[in-house]
Amino acid sequence: MVDITQKQSTLRTAVAQAIVRVSSEETIRAIEQGKVPKGDVFSMSRAAGFLGVKKTADLLPDCHPLPVEHCAIDFTVQGLEIQIKVLVKTFYKTGVEVEAMHGASIVALNMYDMLKPIDKGVEIHTIKLLKKTGGKSDILRE
Amino acid sequence: MVDITQKQSTLRTAVAQAIVRVSSEETIRAIEQGKVPKGDVFSMSRAAGFLGVKKTADLLPDCHPLPVEHCAIDFTVQGLEIQIKVLVKTFYKTGVEVEAMHGASIVALNMYDMLKPIDKGVEIHTIKLLKKTGGKSDILRE
Amino acid sequence: MVDITQKQSTLRTAVAQAIVRVSSEETIRAIEQGKVPKGDVFSMSRAAGFLGVKKTADLLPDCHPLPVEHCAIDFTVQGLEIQIKVLVKTFYKTGVEVEAMHGASIVALNMYDMLKPIDKGVEIHTIKLLKKTGGKSDILRE
Amino acid sequence: MVDITQKQSTLRTAVAQAIVRVSSEETIRAIEQGKVPKGDVFSMSRAAGFLGVKKTADLLPDCHPLPVEHCAIDFTVQGLEIQIKVLVKTFYKTGVEVEAMHGASIVALNMYDMLKPIDKGVEIHTIKLLKKTGGKSDILRE
Amino acid sequence: MVDITQKQSTLRTAVAQAIVRVSSEETIRAIEQGKVPKGDVFSMSRAAGFLGVKKTADLLPDCHPLPVEHCAIDFTVQGLEIQIKVLVKTFYKTGVEVEAMHGASIVALNMYDMLKPIDKGVEIHTIKLLKKTGGKSDILRE
Amino acid sequence: MVDITQKQSTLRTAVAQAIVRVSSEETIRAIEQGKVPKGDVFSMSRAAGFLGVKKTADLLPDCHPLPVEHCAIDFTVQGLEIQIKVLVKTFYKTGVEVEAMHGASIVALNMYDMLKPIDKGVEIHTIKLLKKTGGKSDILRE
Repeated sequence: MVDITQKQSTLRTAVAQAIVRVSSEETIRAIEQGKVPKGDVFSMSRAAGFLGVKKTADLLPDCHPLPVEHCAIDFTVQGLEIQIKVLVKTFYKTGVEVEAMHGASIVALNMYDMLKPIDKGVEIHTIKLLKKTGGKSDILRE
Repeated sequence: MVDITQKQSTLRTAVAQAIVRVSSEETIRAIEQGKVPKGDVFSMSRAAGFLGVKKTADLLPDCHPLPVEHCAIDFTVQGLEIQIKVLVKTFYKTGVEVEAMHGASIVALNMYDMLKPIDKGVEIHTIKLLKKTGGKSDILRE
Repeated sequence: MVDITQKQSTLRTAVAQAIVRVSSEETIRAIEQGKVPKGDVFSMSRAAGFLGVKKTADLLPDCHPLPVEHCAIDFTVQGLEIQIKVLVKTFYKTGVEVEAMHGASIVALNMYDMLKPIDKGVEIHTIKLLKKTGGKSDILRE
Repeated sequence: MVDITQKQSTLRTAVAQAIVRVSSEETIRAIEQGKVPKGDVFSMSRAAGFLGVKKTADLLPDCHPLPVEHCAIDFTVQGLEIQIKVLVKTFYKTGVEVEAMHGASIVALNMYDMLKPIDKGVEIHTIKLLKKTGGKSDILRE
Repeated sequence: MVDITQKQSTLRTAVAQAIVRVSSEETIRAIEQGKVPKGDVFSMSRAAGFLGVKKTADLLPDCHPLPVEHCAIDFTVQGLEIQIKVLVKTFYKTGVEVEAMHGASIVALNMYDMLKPIDKGVEIHTIKLLKKTGGKSDILRE
Repeated sequence: MVDITQKQSTLRTAVAQAIVRVSSEETIRAIEQGKVPKGDVFSMSRAAGFLGVKKTADLLPDCHPLPVEHCAIDFTVQGLEIQIKVLVKTFYKTGVEVEAMHGASIVALNMYDMLKPIDKGVEIHTIKLLKKTGGKSDILRE
């Protein structure tokens, strides 16, 4: 695990994305109308995502534990695709990219898990970092 | 999860309470004389409570992970009631009320779990915040 | 930890209750209309509760780890009180009362945590077992 | 959480896949020659993946905890892409697809985390179920 | 992780030992008279040990998660040495040796942590398996 | 849990050691040649050790959660003995000795778990603190 004892704390932000693709319009409608038998897909997946972001260092050996000081999770529906965006912020010595990406993957997996009984064709697409500020270099891909 | 990146760290304290009510004097005596088959109720529940306080952000999605810098757990027996008081302190950007309340609930549940084999009538009463300092407003209820 | 190696697996169910009391009608309306800033209170608390039920043996030293095979969490609003009911089922050698009670306490704490920014007077009342079947004795209190 | 108390235990298997795409041949060579500064990428990611598979029900609210009875994780390098395959088996009342997919996502994220210092262009592609046996329907996509 | 799907469940027991050696008679007296400032050393370490036994598969990648169905932890003081014995039982497809050894190490570490403020010379000696029954071969070393 | 709210953060380091003793030269060769069936023993145990260091406060009730800012794990083979050294660093109000010792014990247990199928005589010897800097007193034993 990299030695960060001598680094300065600065504001760090990261935005990661995951795409969940369902196989029919009915699945989208069931989500939007709150008719998925396992419950409210967006709210429950947001809860899972917040917890996932905070547990990142519990799962990835080389990840530094860090104070997650903000997390926001948004969903955008476009046709059969649901875009998940996870924003994480901290004021610390290292960045939060992996935390944001782990959050995005947990949200996507939770949607898969909740939708499985009504749609056998759900797929999880590209999990990637969209943006990162703070640290040695900023990144912006969109 | 609320954005606290711009907040200042200050000393935060919180005291929460839970009440465990047993159904007979014998249960109280068994606890005080160390005769509960599952072991020393106060010490083991204190251990569970310390761990519970530290795991709060693991269980509650919106809770910020924070450095728990002090925790003390006390028990007061009055008749058939045992009052649990959990004090938590930190020097951080957000308060520790929910941590103290989670600790109090875990201590109460652990007492319930340890006493169950000798007393079927154990109940957990009001879990509430007694005191909080630091942050925008202090609270004192007693 | 009690020795259960020689016990037979049977169907076990438990229902536990917790009461969350808010301080004004506005809080109830904010919950029901989905206007609480931290998100959908019932769905996110249900997510926290499901995870809490599963983590019971992680927090309480004497609790046996067990396969949680069903969990349902319901909310009933009556005036300023919200009654939380947590049903847990398993087919195993020991009961699920403490799991249900832990779930109820986590749901209540999560509601407290989500409502704190809009209502400073939220209180958590009696956490108790309402019903239990399987094992040596059934219990029914309502 | 779906009620599975009345279901029969049967042998369940699932194979999930994730693709990690690096941005240069040098990254592949560094992995294969054991020259990544954070350590042996395949072995450490396999360790993270095994733990991730076992923690699935800790992260996803609706997932049943289950006895993971086998897990194998393989890597295939093809050009700039590394295909991760995670096989999970259990003898239980419900399937292990989500466990396999969670494992695949954790392996991919850990590779991303370990490779980040030497390759800024690592991407995680499609996480999907390749195969599933046991339960109501078998699935085979390849 | 070894494939145990085809194995039969049988009764498995394991006893592991750890030795904690303190540097003075006063430390022993402080423990026995309940005068260690951090609390009751045996009870709190037993609580930590029970939880440690249950979390073994959370920490060791290759370990199968299993239903811990009994755990007992005993302490024997001989001069400056405290012998910790951890007994674990289950009825499952694989053994509980590593669980017992992990429990013994956690009990020893917790004693070290609680005694540190009053005794700088505490050491942890041999952690080993004393006994194991069930599975292909029984082991007995004493 | 000791009150550290008024302490100053300083650089803290600790090095702990554990000894794993195998029963034959063949075991050492299998490790060094990567022929242990469960996988690469040093890499997987290092992964387990990093996670173990970070989870110390999750297992030991009185331990303060702290930001682990560096961890390095080394192995030295001498005859039938493998010496494990775990270095932990942080910049915080309290030391990291127990974290380093917990890491060393987890690495040792993981080696035991991975080697068990090929060597029934593996033993874990003295887990001790070799060095500590920062805090009221430095310690150096070697």
